[in-house]
Amino acid sequence: MTNSPLIERWREVRQRSLQLMAPLSAEDCVAQSMPDASPMKWHLAHTTWFFETFILESFEPDFQAFHNAFRILFNSYYNGIGEKHPRPQRGLLTRPSLDQVLAYRLNVEQRIEKVWQTATSKQLVKLSELLELGVQHEQQHQELMLTDIKHLLSCNSLFPAYFSHKPTAAIPLAPIQWVPFEASLLDIGHIGHGFCFDNERPCHRQFVEAFVLSDRLVSNGEYLAFIEAGAYQNAALWLAEGWDYLSSQKLRHPLYWHQIDGEWYEFTLHGLQLLDKHQPVCHLSGFEAAAYAQWAKARLPTEFEWEYAAGYTGAETALSQMFDCCWQWTSSSYAPYPGFEAATGAIGEYNGKFMVNQYVLRGASAFTPTGHSRTTYRNFFPVTARWQMTGIRLAKSLQAT
Amino acid sequence: MTNSPLIERWREVRQRSLQLMAPLSAEDCVAQSMPDASPMKWHLAHTTWFFETFILESFEPDFQAFHNAFRILFNSYYNGIGEKHPRPQRGLLTRPSLDQVLAYRLNVEQRIEKVWQTATSKQLVKLSELLELGVQHEQQHQELMLTDIKHLLSCNSLFPAYFSHKPTAAIPLAPIQWVPFEASLLDIGHIGHGFCFDNERPCHRQFVEAFVLSDRLVSNGEYLAFIEAGAYQNAALWLAEGWDYLSSQKLRHPLYWHQIDGEWYEFTLHGLQLLDKHQPVCHLSGFEAAAYAQWAKARLPTEFEWEYAAGYTGAETALSQMFDCCWQWTSSSYAPYPGFEAATGAIGEYNGKFMVNQYVLRGASAFTPTGHSRTTYRNFFPVTARWQMTGIRLAKSLQAT
Amino acid sequence: MTNSPLIERWREVRQRSLQLMAPLSAEDCVAQSMPDASPMKWHLAHTTWFFETFILESFEPDFQAFHNAFRILFNSYYNGIGEKHPRPQRGLLTRPSLDQVLAYRLNVEQRIEKVWQTATSKQLVKLSELLELGVQHEQQHQELMLTDIKHLLSCNSLFPAYFSHKPTAAIPLAPIQWVPFEASLLDIGHIGHGFCFDNERPCHRQFVEAFVLSDRLVSNGEYLAFIEAGAYQNAALWLAEGWDYLSSQKLRHPLYWHQIDGEWYEFTLHGLQLLDKHQPVCHLSGFEAAAYAQWAKARLPTEFEWEYAAGYTGAETALSQMFDCCWQWTSSSYAPYPGFEAATGAIGEYNGKFMVNQYVLRGASAFTPTGHSRTTYRNFFPVTARWQMTGIRLAKSLQAT
Amino acid sequence: MTNSPLIERWREVRQRSLQLMAPLSAEDCVAQSMPDASPMKWHLAHTTWFFETFILESFEPDFQAFHNAFRILFNSYYNGIGEKHPRPQRGLLTRPSLDQVLAYRLNVEQRIEKVWQTATSKQLVKLSELLELGVQHEQQHQELMLTDIKHLLSCNSLFPAYFSHKPTAAIPLAPIQWVPFEASLLDIGHIGHGFCFDNERPCHRQFVEAFVLSDRLVSNGEYLAFIEAGAYQNAALWLAEGWDYLSSQKLRHPLYWHQIDGEWYEFTLHGLQLLDKHQPVCHLSGFEAAAYAQWAKARLPTEFEWEYAAGYTGAETALSQMFDCCWQWTSSSYAPYPGFEAATGAIGEYNGKFMVNQYVLRGASAFTPTGHSRTTYRNFFPVTARWQMTGIRLAKSLQAT
Repeated sequence: MTNSPLIERWREVRQRSLQLMAPLSAEDCVAQSMPDASPMKWHLAHTTWFFETFILESFEPDFQAFHNAFRILFNSYYNGIGEKHPRPQRGLLTRPSLDQVLAYRLNVEQRIEKVWQTATSKQLVKLSELLELGVQHEQQHQELMLTDIKHLLSCNSLFPAYFSHKPTAAIPLAPIQWVPFEASLLDIGHIGHGFCFDNERPCHRQFVEAFVLSDRLVSNGEYLAFIEAGAYQNAALWLAEGWDYLSSQKLRHPLYWHQIDGEWYEFTLHGLQLLDKHQPVCHLSGFEAAAYAQWAKARLPTEFEWEYAAGYTGAETALSQMFDCCWQWTSSSYAPYPGFEAATGAIGEYNGKFMVNQYVLRGASAFTPTGHSRTTYRNFFPVTARWQMTGIRLAKSLQAT
Repeated sequence: MTNSPLIERWREVRQRSLQLMAPLSAEDCVAQSMPDASPMKWHLAHTTWFFETFILESFEPDFQAFHNAFRILFNSYYNGIGEKHPRPQRGLLTRPSLDQVLAYRLNVEQRIEKVWQTATSKQLVKLSELLELGVQHEQQHQELMLTDIKHLLSCNSLFPAYFSHKPTAAIPLAPIQWVPFEASLLDIGHIGHGFCFDNERPCHRQFVEAFVLSDRLVSNGEYLAFIEAGAYQNAALWLAEGWDYLSSQKLRHPLYWHQIDGEWYEFTLHGLQLLDKHQPVCHLSGFEAAAYAQWAKARLPTEFEWEYAAGYTGAETALSQMFDCCWQWTSSSYAPYPGFEAATGAIGEYNGKFMVNQYVLRGASAFTPTGHSRTTYRNFFPVTARWQMTGIRLAKSLQAT
Repeated sequence: MTNSPLIERWREVRQRSLQLMAPLSAEDCVAQSMPDASPMKWHLAHTTWFFETFILESFEPDFQAFHNAFRILFNSYYNGIGEKHPRPQRGLLTRPSLDQVLAYRLNVEQRIEKVWQTATSKQLVKLSELLELGVQHEQQHQELMLTDIKHLLSCNSLFPAYFSHKPTAAIPLAPIQWVPFEASLLDIGHIGHGFCFDNERPCHRQFVEAFVLSDRLVSNGEYLAFIEAGAYQNAALWLAEGWDYLSSQKLRHPLYWHQIDGEWYEFTLHGLQLLDKHQPVCHLSGFEAAAYAQWAKARLPTEFEWEYAAGYTGAETALSQMFDCCWQWTSSSYAPYPGFEAATGAIGEYNGKFMVNQYVLRGASAFTPTGHSRTTYRNFFPVTARWQMTGIRLAKSLQAT
Repeated sequence: MTNSPLIERWREVRQRSLQLMAPLSAEDCVAQSMPDASPMKWHLAHTTWFFETFILESFEPDFQAFHNAFRILFNSYYNGIGEKHPRPQRGLLTRPSLDQVLAYRLNVEQRIEKVWQTATSKQLVKLSELLELGVQHEQQHQELMLTDIKHLLSCNSLFPAYFSHKPTAAIPLAPIQWVPFEASLLDIGHIGHGFCFDNERPCHRQFVEAFVLSDRLVSNGEYLAFIEAGAYQNAALWLAEGWDYLSSQKLRHPLYWHQIDGEWYEFTLHGLQLLDKHQPVCHLSGFEAAAYAQWAKARLPTEFEWEYAAGYTGAETALSQMFDCCWQWTSSSYAPYPGFEAATGAIGEYNGKFMVNQYVLRGASAFTPTGHSRTTYRNFFPVTARWQMTGIRLAKSLQAT
């Protein structure tokens, strides 16, 4: 079973993590800019820990941990596995060194290859399932590697660039078009054999009233008009908790915007750049997304409306920027689908225990690995999160019949 | 128009606020036990401020405020009205005295009576609407008066009783029965002419898969079994945020429970009482409600399931404790119904701006004024709130067909 | 022994506490405006608890507490006595009522009278010592009653007046004169038979280099010049910790000053008053006192310099405002005198355990009870304290010979 | 003037900083374990910034900063110089890289050499003074480099060793001897031509009553007896603020002690080691030092007593461990000597502005560079600081004559 498509994909994904690390120094890889973010080195180790813990420990007959302390250092939040290194102190792990973490990666990869090659066909079912989950897990962390390194570099007044090439300018935009959808009883959630997370299941019915959806995301230029209209000083546009959040954090613009001598700039992985008004606005809290929608006499879509639109015949021609720019805030809180059941064991801690006080984002972003996005994918963050690639697609209800 | 049913009801509701105050001293009425709660005196004044601000100011031709400072002191959260006294400092308002607040109540009541008697029939439409809203608003505060005074007295190690009479023991309970409901496309929300809050509108369609609902609320005895099974020490039962909340707050039992020399007691408005195992468990956070449901191999209902069940023919015989014991946590986040529109002006701040990071509770409680409950009523609190009358009704999904 | 001067003084002091309460309602007496301050009712009860705990419990053969719960509710900080009600929650004690606290006072007073009358001459030594300590303790709380009620009323935007009479305007001031003192080896601390606190002992030697002291306190007008010179925006004038404190608290002026339509007002026990520029500036943190001194090219005196000057022959003609306006910040941290020994038992917790991170204030204030001030008296507060009657006397070092 | 003793010493001190860095990786040098500590890389850059800012900028005719951003990034607390990078975010400076910082060091060193060689004899006076200050400043940071890296490594559950060689065991101790000192009028502070910090001046008179001083520091073994006597559970031994600090931080032993399977270990720069009972106890807060003294029926010395003893003829034979183990907490708050004047300009921010809420430590530690200690040296930290090399020498007052 050396060369199944799954193991090939696993090798590519593992390799891509190293490519994401390539532009960085060992110093860059150790620092943690805030408790929500993790160091690159930690991501590289944790994604390896996942394979060691959930595959090697079960499938190697004479399993020995690569390093006992790594079992604790690189556990993220799995209470079922045991102790964890405190999350806000991940940036203090100057040891193990990056080199040792790369050696850890290599060791675990070699052992996974061996487990794969020697698995019985009965073992292969469970093994494939776990390997697939590990691939998906590592892809999720690949997006975090980029958002977290972006946040770290943004905290440095030297504004270092991660990419060495120049950014390309966006194409000028046409005004937003509203794409209509009829009221409908929908099948929501994942069905069939392909991979999905447990939170996309079970497929079930939801009724959605008629609505329209914007054909593209809100742009930097449009968001700038909102700022210039005094929106950050106008309580009437904001959710009460959002207004308190603005005030306590003294927010006045999206996370990475800087106004220097009257000109707007945005920090990006290309370094500090003049704000491109035709790019989608990004790095907004859900509060800012909702306030913009209020100001634009619209609202955020529910996750069911979004999934309905994304799966619609002809969606790809009517709607743009669904999966390639920013995750899109919805008004749906992150909740279990009716009949949801978490997996048994520590793997069951993957999703269900986070289903409170978080909101669903749909789509995917420029940082999402190829092949990782799906119509039914449910990303989720607290409404205050701004360091992720988060933008705005608008919706409006139509008159009830 | 002196004696319409509405003005009669208004008079009764105003009178009831004074009755709720009757067992208390002026000292009891001034203190605020935490930022979430308000002093009795503040409730008495704020409910009066509401009539002064939204009715007298519009309908009196030569309106003069009873006291200019009261306009600020007794505004709760209406940014549209102007400045507010800081919420956590409501307990510092030793002046105006309780007597002055009672004089304020009387003055506003007399002026409302006069406005009512002299209104043109055209004015009466808007006036009735606002008077009804004010009545409903005061009834909401009547429930808060009781929950807030209960919290205040609970902070006093003398455990004073609010009621002078003895509590009555609950009748022994039969085991929970599960009442089944078929999958259905429902009309959810308020329709027709009776009063409702804007958050109950518009009436719209929701599809609900088949489920069962417990016929009664979870009891103190059943919740005690959950505690004794070690639930507060078992992370696997809790939402991740709930587990952190437990740990940081060192929670081990419902808000008002005390274990003294091995015996469980509950602080109530009758003072400290031996725990009555047949009463519904009350004063739980949404985290505790969800963890109990997890332990009981069930879940919390959605607000749509709850409304479906409550409105079902025969609900009153199959289901008990819907409106008379505790508000019932649902798994539904507080969100606008499709097509929701807030009222214009400051009144529009009543509901919509709170629609984030809160969860819907359905039903009503022993503290809810008679005539204030409805099948479509949506109460809401943050998932951490424990000082309200909050309990548990369980649900389970049925096999998808 | 019914009418010794001590018992007479005790009666007068107990009576004065009631007089201080007289302008207030029961509502005023229950509220606590911040954790540092206590409600009037709590002061009235705690000063009574002191006599009950340290005298009645030892001297009554068949002692029974007036109320068992009061032993805990009205203990301030004596770990040796047992449990305490949490300090920040003193404002929640709506029960016992003010009337019950007054009954508690009366009961304890009657029992103290009886203990006094029936004491053996051997008992009288210890009894007199404790009664004297209780008198001094109650006098200390009488100053706190006034500072705490002032703070409470200041939090109310109605700015209620405690006094019904008008304030008297200050007499115009002459410029500060500098009074010189020669270098000297001093005896510092209390000696002889009169009452003093343990922190004034033992009398010991301190050497002080030559210095000059301002003949009066810094005035409101002088402090206003400091503000108008931009001092609150000039980091160079401030201690580093003071500058951080200013910034985090957004301080711009003394605690009770208000600038309204370009005019400066000060909240006082007479209500809100136009700022009297000839009155000593009051309600300053030690940071503000030190920054003012820095700006005025002077410094704060040490407590030894202050005591030296106060005890000097002719001090009363050369120096004014020593004991009758504001406590005066010194640059001396609150530390034990060489050879200091705390009393044994719970009484020993009176002073010694606070000797860290506090600064000594010398003199007395307009709120200090008559007969309570002394040249050797050491008051102390954290450098951030502003709600006490705290002002500035300046000093300068002279050239070393 | 190429080879004066001063420039030679400057070269050695600069070289020693690199030697302190040698056992560390670039990853180790970037991390900051807490706001009080700084990364090694930051120390290396800041000590260079000091020479660039206070010497090159004044003495180079055509001064150009090595890098404009470094002016802000590596300023510590000099408001007079302008903006500063936020202290708690020093660990986010993955750029500039360690290599760039080393290049910065080299560049500034070469320019300092050139300035030195070309200085006029008139310039040399000021230049020597600043170079000396820079040397002393870098030596202070060399102690911090070691305490800060010790703290960082202590946060890592791998407990990495900084030193590769083994620690040497301490020689068994004799019981503490008490060395007596007579009451005396002392000259305190620095006098003469050698270097001292401004806080050691002016030399002035202090009177000290008779006392005894312990001949050595308190040992780990003696401190362990204090722990085993239940001291951390006995409020009576602690300052009130210290007791609150213990409780909130849950402290039970010195900073780097670990109890594993009933055995006590101490984390050191040699890694985790069995506790050596004959070594002086180290890494204590001033609260712990004071509580130990209280338990031992002694007290901490004042800084004047300490300086008296250290300067006494025969002190070197009677007293040990004065400068070679731990800094010694005194009961003296950090305050200006009478007649103290800070230097003008930004250099004046070196000491004076920290003279509040800090306590003086005397002596020196095993981490203090050779030649940096003095009898009159005044180190200072908040009473809560534990990551410095802080220990206990005891004193007792003698009977007043």
